[in-house]
Amino acid sequence: MKILIDAFGGDNAPLEIVKGSVMAASEYDVEIILCGDENILKKIIEEQNILDRRISILHAPQVINMDDDPQLILKEKSDSSMSAGLRALAKGEADAFVTAGSTGAVLVGASLIVKRIRGIKRAALATLMPTTASPCMLIDCGANVECRPEFLNQFALMGSIYMNKIQGIDSPRVALLNNGTEKNKGTPFQIESHELMEKAENYNFIGNVEGRDIPLGGCDVAVADGFSGNIVLKTYEGVGLAFMGQVKEVFTGKKRGLLAALLVKRELYDMKKRLDYSEYGGAPLLGISKPVIKAHGSSKAKAIKNAVRQAVNVVDMQVIPTIIQALAHENVIKD
Amino acid sequence: MKILIDAFGGDNAPLEIVKGSVMAASEYDVEIILCGDENILKKIIEEQNILDRRISILHAPQVINMDDDPQLILKEKSDSSMSAGLRALAKGEADAFVTAGSTGAVLVGASLIVKRIRGIKRAALATLMPTTASPCMLIDCGANVECRPEFLNQFALMGSIYMNKIQGIDSPRVALLNNGTEKNKGTPFQIESHELMEKAENYNFIGNVEGRDIPLGGCDVAVADGFSGNIVLKTYEGVGLAFMGQVKEVFTGKKRGLLAALLVKRELYDMKKRLDYSEYGGAPLLGISKPVIKAHGSSKAKAIKNAVRQAVNVVDMQVIPTIIQALAHENVIKD
Repeated sequence: MKILIDAFGGDNAPLEIVKGSVMAASEYDVEIILCGDENILKKIIEEQNILDRRISILHAPQVINMDDDPQLILKEKSDSSMSAGLRALAKGEADAFVTAGSTGAVLVGASLIVKRIRGIKRAALATLMPTTASPCMLIDCGANVECRPEFLNQFALMGSIYMNKIQGIDSPRVALLNNGTEKNKGTPFQIESHELMEKAENYNFIGNVEGRDIPLGGCDVAVADGFSGNIVLKTYEGVGLAFMGQVKEVFTGKKRGLLAALLVKRELYDMKKRLDYSEYGGAPLLGISKPVIKAHGSSKAKAIKNAVRQAVNVVDMQVIPTIIQALAHENVIKD
Repeated sequence: MKILIDAFGGDNAPLEIVKGSVMAASEYDVEIILCGDENILKKIIEEQNILDRRISILHAPQVINMDDDPQLILKEKSDSSMSAGLRALAKGEADAFVTAGSTGAVLVGASLIVKRIRGIKRAALATLMPTTASPCMLIDCGANVECRPEFLNQFALMGSIYMNKIQGIDSPRVALLNNGTEKNKGTPFQIESHELMEKAENYNFIGNVEGRDIPLGGCDVAVADGFSGNIVLKTYEGVGLAFMGQVKEVFTGKKRGLLAALLVKRELYDMKKRLDYSEYGGAPLLGISKPVIKAHGSSKAKAIKNAVRQAVNVVDMQVIPTIIQALAHENVIKD
């Protein structure tokens, strides 16, 4: 299997991206194609003494920055590491693409260069979030600020297939993010979405879910428009950060604090690991016709390695063919 | 000062409400009027051996349940503890009203019985949320699922006045909840709200705030439509609960865990207290012409006592007269 990696995307590019790629190549049965400036990448490969022959380079001298207009990916920056990677994916030169670069640019690029699955109205960004039970997929968490109910219905189907194939959940519990559990809750948009999702036969809709129940494991897939989903994602992240800071304070500064930390070192480590996003890899862009994984902008080597593992799983478990099949089946029913 | 308390609102009514009222009457310079069934309340007062003469009863035999249609407060359940309390407040028989009962019912009741401040388009539910710095007010967190930009502009003004008067913040940093910090972020609703808030002269607008920055102390007032605000509030609560559960797990089960807990007992207690909603009292219903405080449905005695303290502060610090003045000033400018 061949995985394209945007070596110049994210806060820690290119060094951490290259390191993560090396880790992935040694742990999984994959060939890695690093996309980016050949001169810089060759220098890193030399300096880091990387001898793995399964790592190659796809030359692309430009870099898309976080504050660039996403549309540049098609125009002035069509020679960027991200554009080149997506074009190679579209042409079938590899099986999946991983980037920690600009979310906006990869959304535009994936939709216009790699293209959406036929019948899918919008691609969505789907993130796995830690809960007190098994992780929950939040879809869409930022790709489509404004949505129509039929988009959410498709997000639900795609999220359900992903959680079934990748997380091994038998019949994922799919819920609509809302401000209450009753079916008449929310704005007209949520009410209409609920009505549509209720009728779905190709996923297990369990009704509305409140923000409160997601972290407590209330559903396997939480479906939202990209605005509300983004609000949940970022609030989740912020409260988590604030809490970890508070926990740190409990243990620091005094001798007995340090002793206490030593006593529960293992448990604290486990807790941190359980709550660590980077363990899950990145956010798949569901709805695109080939696997595209968006890793967190702050990804370091380990997170990149995990994003590659996730890309491998998406290919191996045939997530995209299954989505295509489910859509075809739905259309047959409709016809 | 006289405070009306809905003795039959909330999960722990009436006993915890009565207990909280007794605590408040002994700690603050207030008279408490308990609203509810006289027979039941008299029995509790007798059983609990409550001798405080500053506690009296306003008889109202009916109870509004959490699953009642909020509109019932005006019709079939107009003899409920909540209706009676709001009517007494409207008539000027007391200075403020506190309830842990149905949010929907108190919103309807306060708007229709006590009435909004003249010029205020919608009353909003405003909650103080713990952050790593000083608490942040989230307004609206659920009263108005659908909003217009001018509502948000008024929420911002009211929130700013509250945080100035009650929390003593000099020039509260008011921000618009959004999915990014740039001014063109969000749906057309957020973009339009941002344009309006940017022009405000009677509060300190600092731009957009993401869900991630609220828990980290990024603003003093986070302004949102009731749908998004509710999503933030509940996600906050859920992640907090999940985290506290995880922290508990670190310390339990093993001898060294218990020892560690003993070593940092004080720090853990402080952390819990810092993150405890009930310390802040309840959520003021801003925009109503008299002070109405909505305590959390699960409030116990201490939370009720704190909600009374909050009501006292709102009266003492003249929050409502200040809002009225600010609106009058704004209208003068407009004319």
